[in-house]
Formats: sequence, C-alpha cells, structure tokens
Amino acid sequence: MSQDVSQIINDLALRAREASLALAKASSSDKDDALQAIARALESNRKLLLEENQKDLDSAGENGLSEAMVDRLRLTHERIDGMAQGLRQLIDLPDPVDSLIHETTRPNGLLIKKVSTPIGVIAIIYESRPNVTIDCAGLCLKSGNASILRGGKEAFHSNRALASVIEQGLEQSSLPKDSVQLVPTVEREALNHMLTLDELIHCIIPRGGEGLIRFVAENSRIPVIKHYKGVCNLFVDAEADLEMARRIAISSKCGRPGVCNAIENLVVDAGIAEEFLPACAKELSENGCELLVDERSAAILGDLSTKPADEKDYHEEFLDLRLSVKVVDSMDEAIAFVNRFGSGHSESIITKNKDNANRFLREVDASSVYWNASTRFTDGFEFGLGAEIGISTDRLHARGPMGLQELCTYKYQITGDGQWK
Amino acid sequence: MSQDVSQIINDLALRAREASLALAKASSSDKDDALQAIARALESNRKLLLEENQKDLDSAGENGLSEAMVDRLRLTHERIDGMAQGLRQLIDLPDPVDSLIHETTRPNGLLIKKVSTPIGVIAIIYESRPNVTIDCAGLCLKSGNASILRGGKEAFHSNRALASVIEQGLEQSSLPKDSVQLVPTVEREALNHMLTLDELIHCIIPRGGEGLIRFVAENSRIPVIKHYKGVCNLFVDAEADLEMARRIAISSKCGRPGVCNAIENLVVDAGIAEEFLPACAKELSENGCELLVDERSAAILGDLSTKPADEKDYHEEFLDLRLSVKVVDSMDEAIAFVNRFGSGHSESIITKNKDNANRFLREVDASSVYWNASTRFTDGFEFGLGAEIGISTDRLHARGPMGLQELCTYKYQITGDGQWK
Repeated sequence: MSQDVSQIINDLALRAREASLALAKASSSDKDDALQAIARALESNRKLLLEENQKDLDSAGENGLSEAMVDRLRLTHERIDGMAQGLRQLIDLPDPVDSLIHETTRPNGLLIKKVSTPIGVIAIIYESRPNVTIDCAGLCLKSGNASILRGGKEAFHSNRALASVIEQGLEQSSLPKDSVQLVPTVEREALNHMLTLDELIHCIIPRGGEGLIRFVAENSRIPVIKHYKGVCNLFVDAEADLEMARRIAISSKCGRPGVCNAIENLVVDAGIAEEFLPACAKELSENGCELLVDERSAAILGDLSTKPADEKDYHEEFLDLRLSVKVVDSMDEAIAFVNRFGSGHSESIITKNKDNANRFLREVDASSVYWNASTRFTDGFEFGLGAEIGISTDRLHARGPMGLQELCTYKYQITGDGQWK
Repeated sequence: MSQDVSQIINDLALRAREASLALAKASSSDKDDALQAIARALESNRKLLLEENQKDLDSAGENGLSEAMVDRLRLTHERIDGMAQGLRQLIDLPDPVDSLIHETTRPNGLLIKKVSTPIGVIAIIYESRPNVTIDCAGLCLKSGNASILRGGKEAFHSNRALASVIEQGLEQSSLPKDSVQLVPTVEREALNHMLTLDELIHCIIPRGGEGLIRFVAENSRIPVIKHYKGVCNLFVDAEADLEMARRIAISSKCGRPGVCNAIENLVVDAGIAEEFLPACAKELSENGCELLVDERSAAILGDLSTKPADEKDYHEEFLDLRLSVKVVDSMDEAIAFVNRFGSGHSESIITKNKDNANRFLREVDASSVYWNASTRFTDGFEFGLGAEIGISTDRLHARGPMGLQELCTYKYQITGDGQWK
C-alpha cells in the first residue's frame, strides 16, 4: 500500500466524518438551499460538464465499453436537466431526520423517545452512469449524511467535473464543503484501503455489476448494503384470471427487459398450463422473447420454437428478452421453486383464490411479494417513498426500495429527573 | 480447509435455512409451546447439565480461565432455573412477526403493506457463559429465526449438553428440530468457513471480547451486527443540579463497574468544577474508584490521590473501578469530547438548562443519549423491549438494545387487481 494513497483516503474520510457531525444538526431549509444551489450550479456549468464527459467518451473504446455502456455514460443537455430536476424533487420530499418513531414513559418516570438520525458517513461505489454522482449526493445530503463517492475509471472526467460543480453549490450554501467528496483516484488500492476505515465510514453502498458488489462485500470491514440481481418469478396459479396473467407476463418481461424488477421465470400451475401457455408463449415469442422451457412446457408448446431450460437458467438474471418457463403441480411446489431460485427481490402470484394468495404473500421470502400485479412496481417512486438509492436485496436495515428513510438510523433520547438506579 | 469440516458446516447451514422457512410461518402458539417444552427439558435434565458443566470447569485451568471467567462458566441449580425462567418470560412477550409497520394505497390502486418478518438464519458466536446458548436460542425461536450457535471451547461440554436439551424440547414441539443447532466443533476453520456462507446465513451476531468481534467483522461476508465496547461519558453542565450529578456519577461508575453501560469518563464544566469535583471525587475514591485526571482537575483536587490521564485513557473501557476526569470550558467542547472519545453507546448530560440538554440530545452521536439520568438504564428491559440479544454499537438495522423487534426484518406485500404498467 503506498503511503500517499492511504493518507489521501484517511484525510478524506476524516473530513467526511467532521462534515457529518455538522450535517446531522443542519436544518431542513439549509439542506434544501444547498440542493437548490447544486441544481443551479449544474445548469450554469453545462459547457464544462459536456467537455469533460467528451473526454470519457473518447476513451470509451480503450476502456472496452459496449455500446449500451457508452450510452449510459453520455451526458446531454436533457440529462443535465434531469439531474437538476431530480435534486429539486428531493426538496419537495419531507426531511427524514428527527422524526419521532416511538415514545414511551417507563414506570420509573424515564421518557424514552426513539428518533430518526442520519447514519453518518456513507460511501457509494458505482460504475458507469455519471448521474449516480448527483443522485447519491442529493439523497445523502437530504438525509443529513456525508457522502464519499467512488465512481469508475470509465467516467473519471465526468465525475470529477460533477464533483467540482457540487462543491461550487455547497460553497454557496451553509453546509460544509466536505459534505460530498469524490475519491480523487480510481486506483484499486484506494478502494481497498477505504473498505477498512470502519471507525470513520458507517455504511457502504455498492451499485453496479455483481462482480463489483461481491468484491466489496468480501473485502469490507464496514457494513455493506447490497443491491444484487433480481431473479423475479411470476406464478400463474390454477385459479388465475388468465387474461390478467397473460397481460402481466408480457409486460413484466418485455416492457423493459434490462431492469432488475423484470421477470426471469414464468411458473405455471399444471391445472391451467394447457389452456394458458400456448397463447402466452406465442405472444412472448412475437415480442422477440426467447423461451427456455422444462419438458412439460415443451410438450404443451409443441411446434413453438423454444430451448430446453436447465437448472442454471432458473437462477439467471437475463436482463434481456429471455424467459425460463416451469410447470408445477401445486402451491407447495410453486413456493418452494420461488424460494429456491428467486433472488429475494420481487415475486408475484396471479390468482382469484384468496387463500392461495395469502399463503404466497406470507411464505415467499422476498423483499416485495405481489398478488395480481406486475413485479415491475418495485421502485421507490411507485411505493411512494420518493427517490431511491437502490433496491436492497439484503435483509438487514433496508429491504427492497431504499429511500430517504432507509438512509437514516435512529437514536434513543431519554429524559429523566435524576433517576440513578 | 479440510473437506470434512466445510461439509459439516454446509450441511448444518442448509438444514438451518430449511428450518427457517418452516419457522417463518409457524404460529405464535407453536413457538410458545416449543419455548415451554425447552424450559421443561432444562428442568428435567439438571443432572446431565451439571455433570457436563463440571467437565468444562475441570479444564478451566488448562484453558487459562481467570476466576471471573470460571464463575461465568459455572452452572448451578439457580442458574438453570434462571434459564428456564428466561424462556417463560419470552412466552409472555408479543410475537414480533407479521405485524403491520405501514400501509398505503397508491393512486393506481395498489395496496402496499410493510410487514415484519423473521430475518431467516442467524448465527451467534459467543464465549464463556453457557446461558447465552439458551437466551439466544429462545430469542431467535420467538422471532421465527433459525439459529446456529457457536460457543467457545471453554464451554464445549456445557453447550453440547444444552443443545441436546434444546433438541429434546424441540422434538416435543411442532417446530423443526433444526430450528436451533450448535456447531459441533470449535475448530477455527469451521468458523472461518461459516463466515463465507452468505447465501444460507443472513446475519452474524458476535458476543464477547473485542478481539472476537473484530475477527468476525473482518472475516465475514455475512452482515454482522456488532456489540462493541461501551465508553460512556457523563457530562456535568455548568447549570447542573450538583447533588443529582454526584449521585448519578457515583452510581453509574461504582454500581456495577464491569458492565458496558457504566461510565468511563466524567466530563465537568469549568464553571462548577471547583464546587462539584472535590466532594464527588472524594466519594468516588472512598468507593475504591481510581481517578485518572487532566491537569485542571488535578489542580482542583489538590491532595486527593489521582493519576494523570492521557488521551488513551479517555478511549478506554475500564470495566473496573477506574474513571477518567476531564474539565471543559463549554457545551461545544463537551459535545466534541463525547463524540470523539465515546464509543457511541450511552452518554448523559446533567443540567437544569433545557437548551443545553436539547443540544446534547441532538448533537451527541450515540445509541442512547440521556438528560438527567444514569447511562446504566441502557438495557432492553429498562427500555420496555423485553429480553435483549445484546446492545448494538452499530448504526445499521439495530442501534442500542437489540430485542425481538430488531431480530426481524420486513417485506412488502402488495395487492393489486391486475396492474401491469
């Protein structure tokens, strides 16, 4: 470990910790003013942002970026407007800090209040899309957390320009300049060292591919909130409204296949498989969706072009127009299948049978379990939480869409009149 | 890594995961019946428990246990009664699972319920006191979690006997036998392997010395909830009721110095230091408490026997009749001192000034912040949470006393009528 890099990261984390103590006591209007100042700084620095972004686009080839990744990397006037608008939307959301979660007076007279507080210092490690820099900085500011942002090398110039714009905005506000800091190097050893600073950094949120998230989870001493893949299942029960099931199957696969709340497995009860599958599979095919099917589905689908599914396929997040199909004999088998192959993200049952629905809602072990609706609704805005920093596939602290509230922890404030034993 | 050990741990974790799915849907009465059956099994297996415990006591010397540790290791009829009673107290607490945390209907008609659920599989890694085996098994059962218990080698025979008694109780219940499992070996490689099984185990709770907790936090891929040391501060403000401050200083240090919620630092405002410190320090000394003091306190205390404090002392959890003393000039200095040297556990201000109290409650960054009361009240029972599995010094998921509610996570259950986009 080079002395220089670890020293740079130590100093940066120390400044973040200092800033977090000031941020924790900042008023709602101070935080909202800072968000407004950053939004304005974005709008008045378009030229800088586009020029610096162009440098990253120019190196996209040597960084081995696919066309889709280049598209995500690109800044445009419209995307800059989008970032500024995102910050202004945060202003309209309620301040999550200092809200009373619970209050009780104990027999000895102690008044115990459980109150929401910022977590402290949050580090976000992400790839590719530079708008993450602004989204995360905004969410952390609004929730009173200092943030340390570590983007990928493919967006280095864009992120550095965005960080300087954030700094400009913060300088026009009453919040500490160090409330948001970008790690000034993409060297891996800087990241490695950062993951050991558990006295100064309180939470790590990795956003990106599975490889990045696994690396962080395996190497961090700091608590990590993981946003892993979504292997989402749609189960069509024997008592489903088949028209509803067909519409939801098509839209939750083909609507936007590259997102984590799209379905990857279609699970069909044998009782209605012969009636349901042929028309639904045909429409999926017509939408360009490749089908990976078990033997029973293959027998039902006959001539339709499909491929055989193996166990690995049911575990896969395709992020593409591909769907695995499985026929099951019972609710028990369906629930066991979903709990085995799903990634704990979003699962749905289509049925008119209330008992079956309630069993599914209760026994399926996932962040979001649906009855007669598409898994695509797993999203901070759809849930009424406002903007989200991601969708947690972890169980501790935050599960599912992680919004401003989940960027807070709590403390107990206890008032007495001299209680000593 | 020996194939055998990793296979044993894999199989054990797989069985725990299976059991957790059954436990998650168990009724409250099934869980309470199992707790009752285990309590009865404890009472009817006294001979076995005492005999096996004696084997551990006989090896205490070669395991290098101090007298205090031998005392904690010892089982007696009274302690067995205590464990059974602890389980029966859990029966009286409300079931934390399946409670509605929040409910909202969205403009598109989706009904979104946020409901508490068990976490899943929890591994507890602990040392010395065999009653932890029963306490943790009971808390996890009541909250619908499967538990994997890994005690220390110094209590190996006692823990094995307790695990067989728990198994007896579970066999007389409708819950799976694998709801509670003891790791059958204390080999370090078994622990190391367990810490990698993040697909099967959802939470690790280490209970014990700082070394054990650090080892687990550094080596685990699974989320860890840490219960680190308590460096608690008592701040006597310039406007304190000095008689109240004296009583709380004495009791929160000398009442039971070996616990994490006892104070380690006494911080005194310069405005009342000359009036307050001499009598308070004298009484502390008379109670056998050694004082480590800064230069200003030393000057005020004159002849009283004290030692000079250095910075390291203010960071120290003495767990003993020792107390560091510091004189400060202002609220600002007091809050900065507490945030710097405290471990985020419990902090208290004694003052008649409401503004000062509110600043302290708001700006001090700790799980439990007190106004005019002793830090010793940081405890699950005192907070009205019932039994606790520990006091978390982490910020994510659980902060402060961690009871049944904190052994749960949540899921979203969403009901629609065909919403697809």
